[in-house]
Amino acid sequence: MAEAWIHEPRVTLLAVTQFTPPSHIEWETDTDNPAQQLIEFAGRLCYRSFHNPSGRANAEYIGHLLAQGHLSVIEHASASFLIEGISRSCSHEIVRHRHFSYSQVSQRFVNEAEARMVLPPALEGDPEAQAIAESVTRASKEAYARLVERLRARYAHVDDPSLRRKLARQAARSVLPNATETALVMTGNFRAWRHFVRMRASEHAEAEIRRVAIAVLKILQEQAPAVFGDFTIRRHDDGSEVAEPGYAYE
Amino acid sequence: MAEAWIHEPRVTLLAVTQFTPPSHIEWETDTDNPAQQLIEFAGRLCYRSFHNPSGRANAEYIGHLLAQGHLSVIEHASASFLIEGISRSCSHEIVRHRHFSYSQVSQRFVNEAEARMVLPPALEGDPEAQAIAESVTRASKEAYARLVERLRARYAHVDDPSLRRKLARQAARSVLPNATETALVMTGNFRAWRHFVRMRASEHAEAEIRRVAIAVLKILQEQAPAVFGDFTIRRHDDGSEVAEPGYAYE
Amino acid sequence: MAEAWIHEPRVTLLAVTQFTPPSHIEWETDTDNPAQQLIEFAGRLCYRSFHNPSGRANAEYIGHLLAQGHLSVIEHASASFLIEGISRSCSHEIVRHRHFSYSQVSQRFVNEAEARMVLPPALEGDPEAQAIAESVTRASKEAYARLVERLRARYAHVDDPSLRRKLARQAARSVLPNATETALVMTGNFRAWRHFVRMRASEHAEAEIRRVAIAVLKILQEQAPAVFGDFTIRRHDDGSEVAEPGYAYE
Amino acid sequence: MAEAWIHEPRVTLLAVTQFTPPSHIEWETDTDNPAQQLIEFAGRLCYRSFHNPSGRANAEYIGHLLAQGHLSVIEHASASFLIEGISRSCSHEIVRHRHFSYSQVSQRFVNEAEARMVLPPALEGDPEAQAIAESVTRASKEAYARLVERLRARYAHVDDPSLRRKLARQAARSVLPNATETALVMTGNFRAWRHFVRMRASEHAEAEIRRVAIAVLKILQEQAPAVFGDFTIRRHDDGSEVAEPGYAYE
Repeated sequence: MAEAWIHEPRVTLLAVTQFTPPSHIEWETDTDNPAQQLIEFAGRLCYRSFHNPSGRANAEYIGHLLAQGHLSVIEHASASFLIEGISRSCSHEIVRHRHFSYSQVSQRFVNEAEARMVLPPALEGDPEAQAIAESVTRASKEAYARLVERLRARYAHVDDPSLRRKLARQAARSVLPNATETALVMTGNFRAWRHFVRMRASEHAEAEIRRVAIAVLKILQEQAPAVFGDFTIRRHDDGSEVAEPGYAYE
Repeated sequence: MAEAWIHEPRVTLLAVTQFTPPSHIEWETDTDNPAQQLIEFAGRLCYRSFHNPSGRANAEYIGHLLAQGHLSVIEHASASFLIEGISRSCSHEIVRHRHFSYSQVSQRFVNEAEARMVLPPALEGDPEAQAIAESVTRASKEAYARLVERLRARYAHVDDPSLRRKLARQAARSVLPNATETALVMTGNFRAWRHFVRMRASEHAEAEIRRVAIAVLKILQEQAPAVFGDFTIRRHDDGSEVAEPGYAYE
Repeated sequence: MAEAWIHEPRVTLLAVTQFTPPSHIEWETDTDNPAQQLIEFAGRLCYRSFHNPSGRANAEYIGHLLAQGHLSVIEHASASFLIEGISRSCSHEIVRHRHFSYSQVSQRFVNEAEARMVLPPALEGDPEAQAIAESVTRASKEAYARLVERLRARYAHVDDPSLRRKLARQAARSVLPNATETALVMTGNFRAWRHFVRMRASEHAEAEIRRVAIAVLKILQEQAPAVFGDFTIRRHDDGSEVAEPGYAYE
Repeated sequence: MAEAWIHEPRVTLLAVTQFTPPSHIEWETDTDNPAQQLIEFAGRLCYRSFHNPSGRANAEYIGHLLAQGHLSVIEHASASFLIEGISRSCSHEIVRHRHFSYSQVSQRFVNEAEARMVLPPALEGDPEAQAIAESVTRASKEAYARLVERLRARYAHVDDPSLRRKLARQAARSVLPNATETALVMTGNFRAWRHFVRMRASEHAEAEIRRVAIAVLKILQEQAPAVFGDFTIRRHDDGSEVAEPGYAYE
């Protein structure tokens, strides 16, 4: 029976900034988008310009910030995502981004004997390559299960059963492949997300992480169009999606 | 007529994390506090323990994270505050904290001729000291106004009136005192706020920033009691409030 | 007698990265600049390209990193500066940069009765404006001294003399002007310094911090020409210096 | 023939802070350790206490900073290490630390067909477990080589040979195991290193990363004894080394 490969990451929005305007400050804006309201509010505080002397709409105001490179203002808004169905090589690239907070499934603690595998995009439509990959990832999981069993016996003297499991699993995981599925919660402010998308939705990015970045971008474009609307998504030569920002500053 | 001193900072919550649990994951918790839900959700993902094998309530679960020092999990929740009525010496201390985002009233752009002054807590109840301070802060604002006038004349050749104002104000501000009021929007995750409160609500902190930290703490204890409830607020010898955390880890 | 204004910041290099190549790795480069050696070494590790397949000189190699935006590699090198003769308004802007480490003279602890004042660049050559500023900054220091005296009397019940001084000084400083001199040690990696110089040596930057950024840049261009050589320093309309980078990425 | 397992990480110091005291400041200290000199210098600047009113030796002075939790001062000193002979699961844990700079061997670019494997410490002295692991890691590398070959054929239409290699390798790496050796250059300041060692040399840390942390600690204790000397290294029940700090603050 064929391995049930994972073909696509699953990206789910968990949280995005809400905003309660302070009742003691007189201020009006033309959007009901809370994250964009907070950004405009914070920006206007710097200049005490709540009376909107230039008569800008919220989207214009934020566009101006992005165009001028006043990006610290968009840091007040943030978003959290649940990212599932990605490989451990993809998560290794993701967690290199240092301006985010992460909570990731731990291979030291979780039993990976039934872990699913993520198919690299480049293997789509190539049954022979998939067969090569499937055969060895299956063998890896079997070896993992055998090692866990041996190591739990070896650590039989450890009284605490959860410590015993941890000692066995953290060593046995060494034979698991990069393709092994992982999941994480990833939180960051809008400036960090703009940087992530710029780097990882680009055509130079690796194919799997690019899918994550595109999925994140699509959600953020819905959630805060004034902050992410300048990114254009287009088809690459190979049919995959890539995105590029309209504004240069980071 | 006496200067209308500012006696207390004003701290207003602008935003705190909301949470939408993903519909495809089966999970129940006993709190309806959204920030605490997100924290528990992220923590449980690491161990794939959504079935709650230890039968912990949400507050217990978070208490366990704090006690063990697993503080990265509380980073998924964040809060934004509007902080008004603080002096520039206080804001100079505040912005030294590098894990926050700030938007602050700019003395390069804003007209400070009518700026209010913040009374240092130690001058409360000492009319003579207040008179000394008032006399010189008033003289400083007058000197500021005269310098702005001279400099705008000096920069008469600059066509753009807003640039001309900026050039005048950014130089004239040099005579404004530390007591000059400022305001800022300050955003950070719960781990950063715990660190801020630990450092700045302590008895060793400067009196004005301590008031800010105590005001922040009181709001966060309402908003996320499981995350900030271990801090105890007490009266210091001099009648002011100080706070100390129950958990040691940062 | 005229106040002895400070006219220029003083920027002194305290430390810059040294490098010991590991004896077990065969590798040659054409520079004896240690910071640039470390950067090339770290970059080559990523591709296991110590044999230099493209035959690039060190400066070319680093230029390629900067042009491609592979800026994380230049983070391995860092520099520390002693920055003296700047105002407290300037230091307030400086410490907003969150990727640096700072140690700054504390107005809570140090006696500022004899503090010197920093002349805003825009007041150069304007004796009348200087007279306005001098008169009020002198009055501020006198008020400071009187407040310290009163507060030390008020805190006579505090046994610890250094605590008593701190309580007095941290309140009395509220009347000191932005022009008051401060000094700090500032440490950051080369990526952070490139960002600082880009933002603060630009023509849009405030005049005093621009002088700091230009002074830092001149030293770093000597210390690591391959990393900072793309910045061009030119005269602005008003005779002051501004700088712009050759490479776009941050 | 048996796989040549890697049994230990190799940790090599590449760089540590040097210091040039500014000639215009009168100051003496009793150490010739440059990193410790810089730390004392920066600390003394905050209080303008270059005359050493308490008569403290350098090591005492730094011990006092650590005891009081004034840890920002030790951030001025930094160290870079080359870390080799670690597994990809170990590097995945390492790069979660966000206050460091990293340059790591890229599996997207480098040919891993001859990659060596890191033996998990728990498999030492268990030839049967090693045989299980060896058999499957060898199969993984063979599958990797076959996939690279197929994918380079599939990407034959890509003109640029280095892009073609990258496309093949970044997909084929999905079958490589966690045990695959990697190497990285890791740079951070002394505060970040103290945190890393505290977390990763503890008895709760995973066995392989603990070895890295202990090796780093031993070098830093030589390089800057006043900053790292409070850590005590001892033997754990299982014969491995663990370390604990003497000072509580982070």
